[in-house]
Amino acid sequence: MTDYTIRRARRHDIGAIVHMLADDQLGATRDDPGNLDPYLRAFDDIDADPNQLLVVAVAEGEPVGTLQLTIIPGLARRGSLRGQIEAVRIRADHRGSGLGTGIMEWAIDESRRRGCSLVQLTSDISRTEAHRFYERLGFTPSHTGFKFKL
Amino acid sequence: MTDYTIRRARRHDIGAIVHMLADDQLGATRDDPGNLDPYLRAFDDIDADPNQLLVVAVAEGEPVGTLQLTIIPGLARRGSLRGQIEAVRIRADHRGSGLGTGIMEWAIDESRRRGCSLVQLTSDISRTEAHRFYERLGFTPSHTGFKFKL
Repeated sequence: MTDYTIRRARRHDIGAIVHMLADDQLGATRDDPGNLDPYLRAFDDIDADPNQLLVVAVAEGEPVGTLQLTIIPGLARRGSLRGQIEAVRIRADHRGSGLGTGIMEWAIDESRRRGCSLVQLTSDISRTEAHRFYERLGFTPSHTGFKFKL
Repeated sequence: MTDYTIRRARRHDIGAIVHMLADDQLGATRDDPGNLDPYLRAFDDIDADPNQLLVVAVAEGEPVGTLQLTIIPGLARRGSLRGQIEAVRIRADHRGSGLGTGIMEWAIDESRRRGCSLVQLTSDISRTEAHRFYERLGFTPSHTGFKFKL
């Protein structure tokens, strides 16, 4: 079991996070750690918004896992909050270490602490291994996730 | 074709919106227009957040359609914004009138205006008619939507 700390991401973590986003079958074509400017601008927006929590799991001083939790207020379900998880990544050399479970359980617990009634995420249909992982954590694949690229 | 206006929801629309949420196969067990207090509290949070847009489509002075658009900043896809659509409802007597298409196209256009690179939503796997509707609008059912009730 890896020894790690989960904390809010800071500006100097962005390079490591973008490397994790790009080191991925689907992210490789979409993300580029060679130019961090657009990521740093996005980080400032995320960091200024109290409903956004970008976190990193740190091992031996380095970010080796990340996810973003967004708290969404809504009317449905008697005006309840929902927690939404995006951009879950574990650095290749830390997969299978329990870190994925740890960071996801952190996000579920944080959603509960903030009074959410539901946690949700979507996962590309090609990520069958990830789907089994989410089901083991207690998630139900009850929905179809639709995307529309602009 | 119904003549309607799409505008930001106001506090006095909440009763009509909650009626639409509850008048639904799945929402009937989750929502209750008999007590609006929790919905009004949620509305105040939504209305105060510049990344939340709760809208109504109004016909003859009455809300007959609604959806919520959330703008989510993120690092993935070179620090791009995404628009997320939740709680789409059309009042029963206005279905098939083109209103659903109109309000969804409004949300797609608004996401584009705000610089989003993607619009996303999830739909319960049992809502097969809604799925065909989203595909006709140009959405791709590329993801599995996972939910975890707290």
